[in-house]
Amino acid sequence: MHNFVLDSRLAQDSHFIYDLPLCQVRLENVRNFPWLILVPRIANLSEVHQLTANQQAQLLNESSQCAHALLTLFPLDKMNVGALGNVVSQLHWHVVGRRKDDDAWPRPVWGFNPTAPWQEDEINMIKSRLIAQFDQ
Amino acid sequence: MHNFVLDSRLAQDSHFIYDLPLCQVRLENVRNFPWLILVPRIANLSEVHQLTANQQAQLLNESSQCAHALLTLFPLDKMNVGALGNVVSQLHWHVVGRRKDDDAWPRPVWGFNPTAPWQEDEINMIKSRLIAQFDQ
Repeated sequence: MHNFVLDSRLAQDSHFIYDLPLCQVRLENVRNFPWLILVPRIANLSEVHQLTANQQAQLLNESSQCAHALLTLFPLDKMNVGALGNVVSQLHWHVVGRRKDDDAWPRPVWGFNPTAPWQEDEINMIKSRLIAQFDQ
Repeated sequence: MHNFVLDSRLAQDSHFIYDLPLCQVRLENVRNFPWLILVPRIANLSEVHQLTANQQAQLLNESSQCAHALLTLFPLDKMNVGALGNVVSQLHWHVVGRRKDDDAWPRPVWGFNPTAPWQEDEINMIKSRLIAQFDQ
């Protein structure tokens, strides 16, 4: 009876985009970088190695779908992907598009300050374009 | 005729530990954190999404083997896993054991300064214990 509930901090810091088979795709509300997070809809999960082999394969499959979608939408030089979870323990997987002239390059985006939020019309535009990618 | 050659910066900053089916496992020479890197033995590779679906599944399988091995050797609170490649573009996958009292917590390890190197006897000890884990 332990159902998946999205962590409140993740809910607050990102916008729902799409449900892929394993994960909820969300847009991090940080305008500085095109940044998606994938949250497996599984309760009580904090580490990638807690997933089954099939779920791990599916996670990277969905991560690569997100990477390809971001590369279609934005001019990017590099993808940063992975899971940290030092602050929010609920497993969430980052897919971050990087540019050599972005605000944090070549440092990681995690902990970068100060960040700016996306504007509502930008979020709507990105969401509709991402949905079109995932629906293909 | 493009054979895999380990990037010189990766070679300099880490010690060879083991060959898993897809990746070379290396110990990052940073005593502050138990930190392995996985380097797929494939030429001209910089992004996870360039791997085939099977290779991506194998990468996470090997990542989780590394996570379990580090958890056996060290007292750890969290694993940080993923690929950045903003400085060294050859695809290398990080598996970093974190403790809530480590030098960078809760920030990422990438870019952390100052770091200290492992001592030779420590490297030999860690290597032999990791090999025992991978050989199981």
